Order: sequence, then C-alpha cells, then structure tokens
Amino acid sequence: MEFAGANILSVDQFERSDIEQVFAVADKMEPYAKRRMVTRVLEGAILGNMFFEPSTRTRVSFGCAFNLLGGEVRETTGFKSSAIAKGESLYDTARVLSGYSDIICMRHPESGSVAEFAAASRVPVINGGDGANEHPSQALLDLYTIQKEVAAKRGSLDGLRIAMIGDLKYGRTVHSLVRLLRLYKKLHVVLVSPQELSMPEKYVSELLEAGHKVEVSTELTDGIAHVDIVYSTRIQEERFASQEEADVYRGRFRLNQAIYTKFCEPNTVIMHPLPRDSRSGANELDNDLNQNPNLAIFRQADNGVLVRMALFALILNVVDQVDRSAREVNWYHRRT
Amino acid sequence: MEFAGANILSVDQFERSDIEQVFAVADKMEPYAKRRMVTRVLEGAILGNMFFEPSTRTRVSFGCAFNLLGGEVRETTGFKSSAIAKGESLYDTARVLSGYSDIICMRHPESGSVAEFAAASRVPVINGGDGANEHPSQALLDLYTIQKEVAAKRGSLDGLRIAMIGDLKYGRTVHSLVRLLRLYKKLHVVLVSPQELSMPEKYVSELLEAGHKVEVSTELTDGIAHVDIVYSTRIQEERFASQEEADVYRGRFRLNQAIYTKFCEPNTVIMHPLPRDSRSGANELDNDLNQNPNLAIFRQADNGVLVRMALFALILNVVDQVDRSAREVNWYHRRT
Amino acid sequence: MEFAGANILSVDQFERSDIEQVFAVADKMEPYAKRRMVTRVLEGAILGNMFFEPSTRTRVSFGCAFNLLGGEVRETTGFKSSAIAKGESLYDTARVLSGYSDIICMRHPESGSVAEFAAASRVPVINGGDGANEHPSQALLDLYTIQKEVAAKRGSLDGLRIAMIGDLKYGRTVHSLVRLLRLYKKLHVVLVSPQELSMPEKYVSELLEAGHKVEVSTELTDGIAHVDIVYSTRIQEERFASQEEADVYRGRFRLNQAIYTKFCEPNTVIMHPLPRDSRSGANELDNDLNQNPNLAIFRQADNGVLVRMALFALILNVVDQVDRSAREVNWYHRRT
Repeated sequence: MEFAGANILSVDQFERSDIEQVFAVADKMEPYAKRRMVTRVLEGAILGNMFFEPSTRTRVSFGCAFNLLGGEVRETTGFKSSAIAKGESLYDTARVLSGYSDIICMRHPESGSVAEFAAASRVPVINGGDGANEHPSQALLDLYTIQKEVAAKRGSLDGLRIAMIGDLKYGRTVHSLVRLLRLYKKLHVVLVSPQELSMPEKYVSELLEAGHKVEVSTELTDGIAHVDIVYSTRIQEERFASQEEADVYRGRFRLNQAIYTKFCEPNTVIMHPLPRDSRSGANELDNDLNQNPNLAIFRQADNGVLVRMALFALILNVVDQVDRSAREVNWYHRRT
Repeated sequence: MEFAGANILSVDQFERSDIEQVFAVADKMEPYAKRRMVTRVLEGAILGNMFFEPSTRTRVSFGCAFNLLGGEVRETTGFKSSAIAKGESLYDTARVLSGYSDIICMRHPESGSVAEFAAASRVPVINGGDGANEHPSQALLDLYTIQKEVAAKRGSLDGLRIAMIGDLKYGRTVHSLVRLLRLYKKLHVVLVSPQELSMPEKYVSELLEAGHKVEVSTELTDGIAHVDIVYSTRIQEERFASQEEADVYRGRFRLNQAIYTKFCEPNTVIMHPLPRDSRSGANELDNDLNQNPNLAIFRQADNGVLVRMALFALILNVVDQVDRSAREVNWYHRRT
Repeated sequence: MEFAGANILSVDQFERSDIEQVFAVADKMEPYAKRRMVTRVLEGAILGNMFFEPSTRTRVSFGCAFNLLGGEVRETTGFKSSAIAKGESLYDTARVLSGYSDIICMRHPESGSVAEFAAASRVPVINGGDGANEHPSQALLDLYTIQKEVAAKRGSLDGLRIAMIGDLKYGRTVHSLVRLLRLYKKLHVVLVSPQELSMPEKYVSELLEAGHKVEVSTELTDGIAHVDIVYSTRIQEERFASQEEADVYRGRFRLNQAIYTKFCEPNTVIMHPLPRDSRSGANELDNDLNQNPNLAIFRQADNGVLVRMALFALILNVVDQVDRSAREVNWYHRRT
C-alpha cells in the first residue's frame, strides 16, 4: 500500500510487506521513544486526537507519539460536548474538524463510524477503535511485540506457536491479531476459552484456509504447554448483559509463576493487551509474574508508541527526514 | 482601535477600519492554515483556552490557530472542576489564571462574565462566547466569509444583499453579524423566520437607522430569491422551554438543491454558523447541497482559523514577524 | 538530596539546603515566567500531567511551568476514563503511563497512592496532591512566597513570626507548611482556629521540639497583631459530614481592610493558598483588601509557576542549560 496520505482503518488493508515496512520504521523510532535522541521533524504539524469514547492509554500513546516527532496535539474527549448532540452528521463533523489539523486519530463507540468519518475528512484518519469493530494500531503493536520478543529465537514469524487465552468472543484485539497472523506461514494457534466465549467461527475458518494449524481447548495448562507466546486477555465485562454473567467466566484461566514454571517451555513470552484485571476474582496474569523477564506486557505497551510514531511518519511521509533533525537528549532521562 | 494587548469582548468595539485590518491579516494567514508554510512566530507563548461551557469546534479552532502560529495551549473544559464551586470569585479566578499564560480565550455560560473576567485579567482576553450575549470571533469569521465569497462579484460589501433564515430570535450569531453589517453601506437584509422567532426589534431598528433596507418574510422562497448570501440557522432548541416547543419550528425552512435551483439566483452563496441539524425532522440545509460549489459552510469553518490567527497575531503584536520565521511544510499535506 | 531523577512525594524529603537550592533556581526562572525571556531547554521533553481528581489551578500551573521550559504536556483528567475502573492495579498504570513521558505529575484522591505509583514508575514523579496527605509543591511555593515577601525586611526566615488562621485541622497546606517551617530557627507561630478545627497535636509538638514558639488562640485580632505573615485559609467544607456542619465555622475569622489597619503591624503580609471563599457567608479575606499592596495571594499563585519550573529543571537536570537557549520575548507581553 501507499502510506503517504492513507487512512488506517482496518487490519485488512495490510499485506505482509506493508507490515514489514511499518515495523522497520518502528525500529528506527526507538532512540526517540527511549529518550536518547530528539527529533523535531513534525514541528508545526497538528494531530487532532478525537476520542469520542473514554480512553487513557491509547489516547496518551497516540498523543505522545506525535509529540515525540515534534508535533502538537489538540484533543477532544467525551461525547456530550460534541455537536453531534445538536443533530450534526458525522459528515459535517469530519469536514469541519479536518480543517483544524494535519492528521486525525479517532475513537468512536459505533462500528464503522471512523470509516464514515474518514470518507468525509480532508486529512488522513487513523482508527483508534470503533466500538467492537477494529483497533488496527493495537493489532500492529501486538504483532510487532511478538516479532521482537521471538526474533532472537527464530528470526521470522513463520512457524510461530501462539496460545490465545480468555474471552475470545468479545475481545476485539484477538480478532484483529488473528487477521494479521493469517498473512504469515504455518502458524500453530491454540485457542483457550470457555466454550461460550470461543473465537467466532469465521476467524477460525480464515486461519485454517490460510494453512495454519488451529487447536481449541478449554484447559489453560494444555494450551500453554508448547507455544512461543501466551496471549492472555481479560473478560470484556462491559459487553455482558450483567456483571453477574461476566463473573461466571472471570478468573477461569489464571496464569501465575508456579503454573508458568510447571507447564510452559522456558522463555515462553507472556503478552496481554492491557488493562489486566488484577482484582482478586479475576487476576488472569498474577502479580507474581512481574519479575519474570518473559512478561512482555509493559514492553508491549511501550511498543505502541513506536508503532504509532511509525504510522504517523509513514502517513505524513517524513520517514527519511526523521534523523536529519535529530540531536541528543539534553535532560535527565528515563531510568530503564 | 489599538489591537496590541486589547481584549476582544464584543463586536461593538470594531469600526470598519478595524475589521478591514483583521481581514487583511487573516488573508496573510492562509499559507499557514492551509499547511503550505510553517511559522514559529509565537514559539514559547501560551494560550489559556478556558472553556467553562462545552464546545468542540470553537475550542479546537482557537487552539489550532494558536498552534499554527507556533504557540502552546493549556486547556480547561467543564465547570465542576473549577474553584468557582468552592466560592471563588471571577475576579480571583482571573487574577490567578492570567498568571499562567500570555493570552486567554474564554467561554462561559453567563452573559457579561467574560468582560468581568477580562477586567481582572493581567493578560488579553478573547470572548469565546458568554451565554446568549456575544461571540465576536464568530461574527468576524462570518463577515470574512461573506467578503471572500462575494469578492469576485462585487469587490466590496457595500450594497450586499443577504437573507437570514431560521431562528432569528435566539440565534446569537445573527445578532452579532447584524451588528457588524451595520458598519457597511446600503445593504439589503431579508429576515425570514416564524413570527414568534423574529429578529429582536432593536437589531432591526439599528439596521434601518444606519440606512439599510430591511425586508421581513415568513416564506423561505420569497426570502432567498434575490440575494447574494443565504445565511441559514438551526432552531436553538436549548433555549426553548421544551423539546416539543422547539419541534414546532424545526424543519420550517428547508433549503435543498431543487429549491435552490428553482428560486435562487446563480451563485447565491449558502452559509450556516454550524452545526447544521441534519436529523430528518430538521434538515435546514439538505445534504443534497453538499456538492453545490456555492455551499460555503465548510469554508466558513476554515475561515474561523484564519480570523482567530489574525486576532492572536494582532493582539500579541507579531503580524510583521509572522513571515520572517516562515518555512515550507515538510510533510504530506492536506488533500484540499 | 540529589534532585536529578528524584521523585517529589513529601515535604519531609527536604532539608534546609534543598529548599534553598529550589528557591535559588526559582529565582532564575523569573524572566521566563514573567515573559521577558523565552527558553527552549526542554524542547522535545514530555510531561504526563495526570490528574485523577479535578483541579484547574494546580494542573494548569504545572502544565504552564513545563511549557515555559519548552516542553510538551499530555494530560489526563478525571477518574472514570481510567483503566482503574477495569481492575487495573496502580502498579500496572504506573508501568504503562511512565512509558509515555519524561516526567509525571500526579494528583490522586487516595493518600499514599502517588508514592505507590512512583515506586512502579520508570520516570520521576511529582506529587500534585494525594488526598488529605501531601501537596509538596504547594508548601514550597508558600515558603518561597514568605521568603520573597519578607526578604527586604529581614534577609532570613529565621525568627519569622507567622499567624495561621482558619481550618487548621483539615487544611493540608498548613500542615505541610508547618513541616517545612520546622527547618528554620526561632519561629513564632500563632495558630488561630475554632477549638474543634485546631492544628493536630503532632504538628504542634514537632514545632515545639524544634525550638519554636507556638501560641494558640481563638481570636483573630489577637493572632494577627504581631506577626510578619497572616496565612488565612478557607473552611475545607468538603471534609465535613454536611454543609451545615461546615457553615458553623464559615466566616468565623474575617480579615478586611479595617481590621487590618487597626490590628496589624504595617506591612504585614497576607497570604492564602486559594481559592478564597468570597461568598457572603465566608469571605475570610474581604475583597476590600484587593488594593492592599501587602495582599500577596496572587503573587503567591504566580510563585507556584516559578517553584514548579525549578522542580522540573532540577529533576531533569537542566538548570545550567536554561539560560543558554534563552532569547527575548518577541510578542506583546503581560501588563504587570
């Protein structure tokens, strides 16, 4: 695909070569994100960070990624304050707001709304999550993390073994990730969930049609035994009819250090889209894993900044200019 | 008037020469707002963008305008979070907040509050809307749009023919616009509204006293027949006692492409302060007008950025320095 | 203490020499805060301004202080939008958010939460107020104000006479200020409050143990008679069981110009942590004092910017670089 000026609306728009391009640029962003270097390549550019649904981490991650490239961020959060309440169409909102910035990142509670917005926008739009539908930058950062974490061992994503655990029915992130994984070769995907929360059939079929091996289980310990990656998720309680209904499944698959040591292969990487639910009734990834060097969940969050910087740099077509304006960070920087 | 350090509180503070000065500076801002050029003239300056009442477009428009000049924006939205709830006077709020920035833009639900705030502020204050009272930058951008849209045809605003349609009683923007139009010569103003929502008498008298021709009508098709500008507005439902009461008037004057073709002169310009109400029961400007090149409503919103940049540049006295720090945009820029 | 990379969590971490260091740097910040000079020393750095409890003045003061040093600010306000509602631990929140910025300022409703957050954060954290516990930058700015206001008269804080008036039981600021004052010598502290709202015993003991003189009174006019500083506070009504209970004490100690003239020594300085409650039933500092040159309450708020700039410069270790990138302000600047 041609990135310059493109909208990023769905994982389906990426081919394998596109993903590799994003990841190569993300790698280049590391000195800036890790605060060793400063670049001002987007000085003067404005991101419209439009979150019509609450979010802290995704919103701040996009905003920081843009700041790290030297750009400015104008933000809108919440729904009530919007003109939509006065009967404005998404078309009008898009036409107006796209006059205020160079690029827009948008989250919206309704499926398809971001694509509708993008169609009327005069500047590129990145989907920051449209209801239960898509959240492409999350899928990209997940895949980027998988690649970085297993690169030492295997060099390629082909042949990867991954277990997805938890609420595979409502979890938007696992659906998008499966879509991207399809593009690789000979994967072994283990799906562990309660039967009622199993991965929708269409995603399973797609994996099978693409030649991957799919295993389905309701037992955690089976699932995590022979994989490179354990991708755990929380129960998406906000999608259930009641708290009680969600409680039936919460805490069903708990990974802790003892289980990890007993059942996982050495150096199995643990991922989670976050937030993990650390309340005693849930605790899908126990806090006693925090010292486990293979717990990749915070590196995964950090990778979000790299991937989002890469998307901005590609869409605004400044990849080749990033290093040109670089200088060393002149302040005390991060302990890690 | 002397712009350097001035507050912008009311349209009444402008003479015709002042307006012409604002518009001349707004013209100069176009390469920056259209993202062909970047200026950093206000690098290091801070705008306090204080919206004590919800707003997306006006708030973001002011914020972007300041960013486009190279400045930073610190924002406050909503009311509850303010110290006012703990009994703080507007005087104290102004004294404190004006220590944090170089200029303040403020929206507040109460008429007169922004002027009261400005009297205690130590930095210049722009009124971003104080209840039903004033919203001077909106009136300026409306007039600026009128001038730009009809410039090719007539070169001057004198002699302009304009129809104002809809809720002329509660619409703050039409009141302020009428105030500014008074300053020009031999206008022909057609006021189309339900009788109950007609333009308050004082504004009509002022127009007549200034030598303009005023026509009043309750029929859309009469009103739009022989004018240069059709300025449509939505029913300000939030000012009615009930939704039902507002519904009586909603949708009374609907302009669509068929009516436009049949009744309007060629190239009649369509304006609207936005948001337009696109719900089926309202639809004062039909979506089938979206392809009409004379639909100026989104250019009008874009002009808001130019006018606000001009106000900032004039008040902070940097007009002559804007171009000095200019350079070409180095990223992919806007499709339009 | 070593400031580079340090967390600022409590006033207890400061020795007298540390405070003097902060104040010396704050003095250096004045040309930047007063908008005579611009520095870009932190260009490219990001502050995560995380306010999980409403605040306007502290939030904006921190944000502006960072902008004034040339850095960017990413902000989060409110509680609902946070992942904490989905069961995320403070540890996880800290690990994730600290990947997004170079330094974090955090306000949180629960005592101790900011220290817990800081322990997991990968970047330095400044406590912007954790419930009823601490608000160290407020105490520093209060003390800085005291020093500046009385410097002409006495050159040192040793021997200072100060009256603290009002709600000394729930007022977080007076507790923290007392903690800092302990570090100086031979102070005379007059505590004026209703008996039910008197200063907690442990703070009084600490003052006495450090060799200071403490006087307790329930009469305003006694208390303010022979001091250098009158530090007034409002009734912290949000800490009372009911509005009615708070009303019993509100307005008990009202200082106005007539009382000031009659009872205070010439040039007694009036301070208040703000907001002052200017409703007729409260009015602890009457508006007729606004013209009194010894009313230092707005200079006190301004000093907050200086002190916060100093903390940022010290923690990020750029004190020596601030002036190197300095230039004169090129726009119309502040009237005062």
